[in-house]
Amino acid sequence: VGKSEAYSEWYNRIVEESGLIDKRYPIKGMNVWRPYGLQLRNNIDAIIRREMTRTAHDEVEFPLLIPKTEFAKEADHIKGFDAEVFWVTHGGLNQLDIPLAVRPTSETAMYPIFRLWIRSHTDLPLKQFQIVNTFRYETKHTRPFIRVREIHFFEAHTCHSTYEDAELQIQEDLEIWSRIAEDLCLPYVVNRRPEWDKFPGAHYSLGADVLTPELKTLQSATIHQYKTNFSKAYEIMYETPNETREYAHQTTYGMSERLVGAVVAIHGDDKGLVLPPAVAPVQVVMVPIIFDDSRERVLAQCEKLFSTIREAGIRVQLDKREETAGFKFNDWEMRGVPVRVEVGPKDVDAQRVMIVTRHDRRKVEASVERLVDAVRESLGKVQVGLKERARQVVLANTHNAKDLSEAAKFRGLVRVSWCGKVECGKVFEEKAGKSVLGKPVKELETGKAVQSACLACGESPSEVALLANTY
Amino acid sequence: VGKSEAYSEWYNRIVEESGLIDKRYPIKGMNVWRPYGLQLRNNIDAIIRREMTRTAHDEVEFPLLIPKTEFAKEADHIKGFDAEVFWVTHGGLNQLDIPLAVRPTSETAMYPIFRLWIRSHTDLPLKQFQIVNTFRYETKHTRPFIRVREIHFFEAHTCHSTYEDAELQIQEDLEIWSRIAEDLCLPYVVNRRPEWDKFPGAHYSLGADVLTPELKTLQSATIHQYKTNFSKAYEIMYETPNETREYAHQTTYGMSERLVGAVVAIHGDDKGLVLPPAVAPVQVVMVPIIFDDSRERVLAQCEKLFSTIREAGIRVQLDKREETAGFKFNDWEMRGVPVRVEVGPKDVDAQRVMIVTRHDRRKVEASVERLVDAVRESLGKVQVGLKERARQVVLANTHNAKDLSEAAKFRGLVRVSWCGKVECGKVFEEKAGKSVLGKPVKELETGKAVQSACLACGESPSEVALLANTY
Repeated sequence: VGKSEAYSEWYNRIVEESGLIDKRYPIKGMNVWRPYGLQLRNNIDAIIRREMTRTAHDEVEFPLLIPKTEFAKEADHIKGFDAEVFWVTHGGLNQLDIPLAVRPTSETAMYPIFRLWIRSHTDLPLKQFQIVNTFRYETKHTRPFIRVREIHFFEAHTCHSTYEDAELQIQEDLEIWSRIAEDLCLPYVVNRRPEWDKFPGAHYSLGADVLTPELKTLQSATIHQYKTNFSKAYEIMYETPNETREYAHQTTYGMSERLVGAVVAIHGDDKGLVLPPAVAPVQVVMVPIIFDDSRERVLAQCEKLFSTIREAGIRVQLDKREETAGFKFNDWEMRGVPVRVEVGPKDVDAQRVMIVTRHDRRKVEASVERLVDAVRESLGKVQVGLKERARQVVLANTHNAKDLSEAAKFRGLVRVSWCGKVECGKVFEEKAGKSVLGKPVKELETGKAVQSACLACGESPSEVALLANTY
Repeated sequence: VGKSEAYSEWYNRIVEESGLIDKRYPIKGMNVWRPYGLQLRNNIDAIIRREMTRTAHDEVEFPLLIPKTEFAKEADHIKGFDAEVFWVTHGGLNQLDIPLAVRPTSETAMYPIFRLWIRSHTDLPLKQFQIVNTFRYETKHTRPFIRVREIHFFEAHTCHSTYEDAELQIQEDLEIWSRIAEDLCLPYVVNRRPEWDKFPGAHYSLGADVLTPELKTLQSATIHQYKTNFSKAYEIMYETPNETREYAHQTTYGMSERLVGAVVAIHGDDKGLVLPPAVAPVQVVMVPIIFDDSRERVLAQCEKLFSTIREAGIRVQLDKREETAGFKFNDWEMRGVPVRVEVGPKDVDAQRVMIVTRHDRRKVEASVERLVDAVRESLGKVQVGLKERARQVVLANTHNAKDLSEAAKFRGLVRVSWCGKVECGKVFEEKAGKSVLGKPVKELETGKAVQSACLACGESPSEVALLANTY
């Protein structure tokens, strides 16, 4: 089944056929990461760590289990997570005195300790992150990488002296996200979530949304301004230079294995995965085209060229299996390897190779002399090509709705005019059958103005809001 | 308090003062990994991954939670872990139909899936590993890295056609361990555990034991031969070339954050940690010795030399803080940085540096011309020095006991003569007040023979058994 005919079926099929995961684990929404999937995930984590190091965040790891007493300290937070926490109630054969939450996120694990670490303004900013798995008791339909019950998770937690410093952190987070999205070839919009959809306990929340081929938006990164909501609950205070005591201002930044899901969903095609070069476990595969009388010659050339590419620091694999070249092409296309290098007997004679780019399956010839440059150019073409193709999909599916019946008909990203009142937002959601993503902080193109009056109440002035169907 | 006067107090103090962990998390036996501790742990993990890649193991990740129905399939296994498993019984506000074990180890998570992955003899050997956290409801006294309730854990699981192939895997595991122990400067003995102390479900178990300064042995790596015990319970079968169906033979190999504990305990001294160069987050620290009139000159030289060392691929840090040189010396000694490079105004004039090795605090002079070589030599001296020092402790504390009253008096590793019967082993444990580590598969030196007759029943022939107090 192809991607365009039956999207969900296609998605569920290729995540297994490409060797990313095995879905047959006997708990719903918990999957086995197979070696290829784990390599892809590790490569994405490595990009995140690169960005964290560049911006002077320290990596830490807090325990998985959180005593209920700590978990319940921030009222909105516990209310928001109450229905989706897994609880440990027994240790061995004993009932525990205090149930332990299996972390759905780590505010309540970290902040009692932040309270001990932060004494003075000289301890600020505190910028820490961890990459761990989190757990949510999802009752909705699960989908690999997109909605799971064990979630591979990144969370940065920062503490600052002032609200303004925390705002600067959020600007830094947006810049970090733009670099990660670039490496993953993902065009995105950033929205300030409406009041009713912000993170439980946050002052406000930003979400970076990407558009999948079924024209639903997938929240791929979130950045939260907590103000002093948590620091008040957890008594995280610092002494100012004037010796007064103030509450710290906090932010968080979260991402997850949804990034893997976004890459699969947005770049994949009927042939399987198409992986961005920056994170592909195998960036280049070399396939010898072997005929009986040329076997030795072709393999010798392949070994030589393979070494040349590997020594250039490119993740390359030489496929020497006994199967036919056609079988190998299909196999590596399913796995989404961005660039294929083919070497047959005539190529050996002519001291050339054929290079095929995965996203458009175009073939170019290159001399072995400029092999590494030609491979790099092809990797670059995939990088740019993937991003541009995804961008065109977003542009083609961004609509200005002049009234709510149009908003209901459009699919994709729907721009409407909104006075900002909660009740009008709720009218949008009901009448358009879509969620309010929020007010866009960043769009793909500077958007044209929409109607000046709110599409729900008719009042002015109003601002743009984005609506979409979401996961 | 120094290491020799009050060992436990010393240990508990330096794991926090050196910045490895914070013990103030509100659940007993669950600690916070601070950035320095996490870097050390990550460096050890990197060595493990290097060894796994070298020996063609694939990295995977299985879910944390295991349905009780799967967990209970191998009878000895569930009996062995019953009392120490954390159980998830609720998802949100609902009681779950089937309680979920928080993995204490992953046999029961993996093997139902291995059953699906293995069809034919061509699927074997299957060699997989994961690095995850495991959980045990410890009721004994906890100690950082040594006995904790959330355990950073490595587990390799392999499947083979025959018992002999599985035995070859165990030889490979022992070779892998010897390389890891070399990098960590840890001398060790390997023992085949007695029947009553093997892993629940194993056919036999090997344990690699290291001797800590309080003369107790710490089990640091375990290798298990499962034979077909688990494959029968989980129906892991393969088709032979003759088209018959056979059960797979299985092994596992486990290590944990105890490796961090062993490094802290064995190499540390009154001044703090002493880290093996192969895993030290900072291998070299450069400390400028600054006087007001020479500030610029010394710092400029330091920057230059720092770059030279860094470009050689050595993990180096330049300490430009405002504190005194003496404060910095103490600080980096506490953190166990193996090599310190000091640069003062006279050193700049003479184009030399002073190099201090952490383990013996000896100072040597080196010309800036051969800076990198001199630093490498010093790192090598720490590597060799740490290992040799630890080896001497083991040799000095290995005793041949000629009767059980001697075995009771000796501390450290006590060699006795054992006929091999369980009841005699139990007599040793009772009369000597020590555990039977098992029959040594590998000792530091080819041991002298002990009495030929079993020290419990007097029967011959008998073999050597090692006794010790354990954690």
